[in-house]
Parts: sequence; structure tokens; C-alpha cells
Amino acid sequence: MTTPLAAKIAREYGTPCAVIDMDRVERNIARIQKACDEAGVANRPHIKTHKNPMLAQLQIKAGARGITCQKLGEAEIMADSGIDDILISYNLLGDEKMARLGALQGKANVTVAADNSVVVGDLPKAAAASGRPLCVVVECDTGRKRAGVETPAEAIALAREIAASKGLSFAGFMLYPTEAGWADAQKFYDEALAGVRAHGLDATIVSTGGTPNLVNLGRLKGCTEHRFGTYIYNDRMQVAAGVATWDDCALHIYSTVVSRAGPDRGILDAGSKTLTSDTGGLEGHGLILEHPEAKIARFAEEHGFLDLSRSNTRPSVGDVVRIVPNHVCVVVNMMDEVVMVRGDEIIGALPVTARGKLR
Amino acid sequence: MTTPLAAKIAREYGTPCAVIDMDRVERNIARIQKACDEAGVANRPHIKTHKNPMLAQLQIKAGARGITCQKLGEAEIMADSGIDDILISYNLLGDEKMARLGALQGKANVTVAADNSVVVGDLPKAAAASGRPLCVVVECDTGRKRAGVETPAEAIALAREIAASKGLSFAGFMLYPTEAGWADAQKFYDEALAGVRAHGLDATIVSTGGTPNLVNLGRLKGCTEHRFGTYIYNDRMQVAAGVATWDDCALHIYSTVVSRAGPDRGILDAGSKTLTSDTGGLEGHGLILEHPEAKIARFAEEHGFLDLSRSNTRPSVGDVVRIVPNHVCVVVNMMDEVVMVRGDEIIGALPVTARGKLR
Repeated sequence: MTTPLAAKIAREYGTPCAVIDMDRVERNIARIQKACDEAGVANRPHIKTHKNPMLAQLQIKAGARGITCQKLGEAEIMADSGIDDILISYNLLGDEKMARLGALQGKANVTVAADNSVVVGDLPKAAAASGRPLCVVVECDTGRKRAGVETPAEAIALAREIAASKGLSFAGFMLYPTEAGWADAQKFYDEALAGVRAHGLDATIVSTGGTPNLVNLGRLKGCTEHRFGTYIYNDRMQVAAGVATWDDCALHIYSTVVSRAGPDRGILDAGSKTLTSDTGGLEGHGLILEHPEAKIARFAEEHGFLDLSRSNTRPSVGDVVRIVPNHVCVVVNMMDEVVMVRGDEIIGALPVTARGKLR
Repeated sequence: MTTPLAAKIAREYGTPCAVIDMDRVERNIARIQKACDEAGVANRPHIKTHKNPMLAQLQIKAGARGITCQKLGEAEIMADSGIDDILISYNLLGDEKMARLGALQGKANVTVAADNSVVVGDLPKAAAASGRPLCVVVECDTGRKRAGVETPAEAIALAREIAASKGLSFAGFMLYPTEAGWADAQKFYDEALAGVRAHGLDATIVSTGGTPNLVNLGRLKGCTEHRFGTYIYNDRMQVAAGVATWDDCALHIYSTVVSRAGPDRGILDAGSKTLTSDTGGLEGHGLILEHPEAKIARFAEEHGFLDLSRSNTRPSVGDVVRIVPNHVCVVVNMMDEVVMVRGDEIIGALPVTARGKLR
């Protein structure tokens, strides 16, 4: 079964193809902005999900305070499009990065994150190059064992180092609590805040993160802003986390069934170079809307292998199906462009401008 | 510990950065060409690994008969660079693909693979558009349960369908035996060949595949050519398969340690958007040459999380390390460019021209 829109996409663009429904995109943007407004927390969406300046501008127009970028190269593209308030939630260091960061400061108000003294030791070079003070937040690890200082004492010490560094300004704290770890995060933050205040500093930015944390939005007392990323498109992980429905999933991969291979098998033209090997902790590599019981069981680079043994409906060779990916952020990063639609109308292609900006 | 070259790469390009050593690339190309020559089997390298026309030309100059592409978009780029003999080892179907395939036939001698009647039913449209006969090989599944007809009888029937189709010419068989499955592949092929001969057809192309099958090169009696892909760069999977040494690994990801996070932990600026989540069935996500006992345990999109608990040596924040990826083909597909070096000299950047050509 191929929908009329899928047939049109296949004819005009070919498959596999990433298609975004702009009605859903706008609805997702409005919904999260409303949630932020109601929680009294500013919205600072993470553009790593869409990597496109036009979509970032839509988020700002809807009320977002600014944006979050993970890599300097992403921030450069966003600043060039006129976005003025950028948090780079990443440890930047080294002369090459400092020269670029200094140049970026000439184009936008930039805040960076740091979790160690080596980074704080390098950042003044960027500030010096720009001639402008650079705002720095201390990244705190509140349970994920990813980046971030591990204790409030370390957070306080690093905040003082930042404040004592020429050209740097201590701006606050960045946290990414686990969904179950908000009480711990509050304890960490309260202690760190009291510590910096005891040294005459204060936190003007207190940033929390994660689309699955929608249910916890504003729960950290003192939080000033939240970094939502995936919500603009949503994916199978967000549905599994209970923060989105299938109707909120704005991006689908349109893929052609290129072989049936055997009675219980099928082969898609979308493999790990389209959908990526990120499982997001889920069984199977995406939901096929036309055949929800079919399992995308494994990948070759350009093939997705279907296990149809538990599926009552079976696709035919030539069918174009729609897939909700497990993890949309990494899938978008495979694409040079996504195709915009509204309902059944194709609007046109949108470049994934910051795709591959690894540095 | 940062090597002088790593420091130079970080300064001139920034990290993470994919670096290829052209001495190793050329040695790998020569080694496999020699193995093909000695086995009396033509070399038809798969360009999905490097996705660059200049490197494909090096392979041809060294003696390769032609190239293999997985996607039509890859083949278009290779044909535009003047490469004339292209096997697209993929089921192509649909009007959009047929129009492009017809145009491609005007630029190069193209052979395509098919494993089902729907594809064979579409291919004459391309031949008609080009006005040239289109060569088609039958893809046979000899044990991997990927693409391919499952029995010799199906292979024979499909070969006859191809031969009976206007504008199509049956060219032979494409196989991808498992490393242990060559006896089965021989049986499959012998039966299929006898069957097509009984109908007055013959196989001029008998193509086997896979770099790990280097140890089996020429083992299929009747084989005319082999599709090597990964050998040009090699990776941790090829070393694990015993067909390459660490010194044969020509591509390294240069990555900066951006945090130590905790005494037993470290964080790289290379995550799943650089190294991908492909494990290739191996433990850990790559080998760090400077710290071989450090484990790249897991990823965020732009972070690689190190488990240093079993490592006697520990990197410092700011160190630039070199990583041999598990699966180099998907890593190259993350990159807009790779940086070429010879020994300690930087030559310059090479675009990954066919990156993201999903269709």
C-alpha cells in the first residue's frame, strides 16, 4: 500500500527520503513553547535535531529565548542566519576552536559550557580575540555520567575559576537531570548556588535539558530555561517515553520495498546509512506506519531487513512505506535535505545546513 | 600524549577529523590488486567505502576492471568523473530511478543487479530511455539472508525473464558468500549456471564480494570478479577478521579529549555523529592507538565516553588521540571531507563527494 503522497514523493525526489510535515512541526513548536510559558521557564531549543536556520527562526519567532548548539560549526551557521543568543553546551578547547569562537562572539551573544579547568584556561583566548566578555556556565553531571562536574564542590571551584579568568563571566549552571533524578539535581544545584553566592557570584542562567523531561519542566526550583531538542520532530523514543504520540511525529522516512527475499522477509532501500544503527534502547529500528507489526530487524548499509513473521499485512515490492525512526536526531544528520509537506501537498526541499558540522 | 601530526591536524582543521594516510591507501590498493591478479579474478572495488572519484580512479589505474556502487546517486558521481564500467549491486525500481538509470547509461557502461520480477519489469524503461541494452546480473543469496534469490531454480527463472525482456541482457550472477559458505555457494552457482545454459544463456559476470573474503578469493570455480570494499581503508572489523593489521588501517579519526569527567572516565569530542553506533559485532566503539586498553564504552551524539578502569595509561584533557573505527564505511559517510596525509605531512582535504547519496 502506497499513499498518494508517498507515490508523489517517490516520483519527484526518489527514496529513501526524509519528509517533514510542517503542520506538525509548527504544532510541536507551539506546544512546547506553551509548556515553557506555563512553567515560567524560557525555551532554548537544541538545534542538533533539525540543523536548519529557518526552523531555528520559527522556534524563536514562537517565543524561544535563543538556541542551543552542541558544536561550534552548528553555532557558526546559526549566527550567520542572524540568530543572536546561542548557548554552546560543549567543552570547547584548542587554538583552532578559540579563534573561531572569538570570531563567533563578534556575530552573536554566545554562552559556552565548561566542566574542567583546561577548558576554562583556554576560553580567555576567544574572549581576547573578540574583545568581548564570554559568558560561561558550569556543566553539572546530575546522574547521567556524561559530561559535567560530579560534585557541587567542583562546580563551585570551577565557577570561581571562571570568574577569576580575564574576559570570562560566570553565568550559571547547566544540568541534564535523568527523568528520575530531579530531587538529586535540586540538591546538587542548591548546594552549588549557595556556594557561589558565598563567594559573591550568582547564577543568571540555570538550564535544564531533554525532551523526555517535558513531564519535569520547571520542577527544578531556580531553573531559568530548558533545552528541548527532539520535540520539533519527535520519534519512536519520545513516543516510548510518553511525551509524544505517533501524530506528533513530524518526520517520516519514505522508503521503497525493493525485495521480498523470502515469504517472511522484506528489504527496504533504507539501511544504516539512512536510519543509523542507533536503537535508542528499543526493539527494531523504527515503526512502519503501513505495517506496524513488521519488524525492521537489522541493517546493511543501504538495506533494511524486515522480519514479517508476526505481521498480518505484508508489503509488495515497489510499495513506498513511511517509517518513524527510533532516534530522529541522528537520522536527520544523514540527510543533505529534508522534503517539507503540508498534509498531502509538497512544499519543497529544505537543506540540513549544519549537517556534518562535527567541529 | 599528542603526536606532532595530531597537533598539526587539530590546529589546521580542528577535531574530530578523519585522516587518511595515502601511503597506506596506495599500499592497500596495490596489495588487493596483486591478490586479484594472482587469483586470476578481476577486481571491481566497491566505492561505498570511500565515496570519492579520485580514489576510484586510483583503484582503476592500479588494475581494477571497473567499480561497484550500491546506490544510483553514487554511480552518477562516478560516471561524471569519467569512470566507464559500473556495477550497481542493487535492486533499482520506480520511474524516478529508471529515468536516471537511462541517463546514466548514456555516460557509462552500467550493469545492475536484480533479485525479483518487479525490478526486472521496471528495468526495460531505463533501457528504452537510453536506447542501449542494459546488462543485468541475478543477485543470489548464498547464506546471508540479505538480498538475493534463495534457490538456483529462482535464479534460473529470473535469468530467463531478464533475457526475455526488451532491452535487457542477462549478464551473470552476483553472490556474497559467507566466509564459511563457499562450498554451498559453489553448489548454488553450478546448478544455476547449468540451468541457464540449458536455456541457451551464459554467465559472463560471476561476481563475489567482501573484504573479509580475501582468504577465499578465487575459491568459487567460475568466478570472474570480486567486489572488495573496506580494504582501501580497513578498520577494526577487518583486523578482527584477520585480513588486515593495524598498520593496514589507513583511516584514523583524530579526536580531542574534552573532559576527564571522573578518574576512571574520559570524554572524546567524537560521538555517534562521528563514529556511528555500528559496533560491527565488536566490544567497544573503536581502538584508541595511544590508549589501547581504554574502552570507548558508549556514545552521545557528539561525545564518546571512555571507560579507563582497565587502562594503565590515561589521557589528559586536550590530548588529541587517533581512533581506528569499528566500521570505516559508515564513518566516512558522516564526513564532508577527509584529510590526506603522507607520513607526517598534510597534503590537503579530499571531499567525500558521494556522501549521503542515499538514492
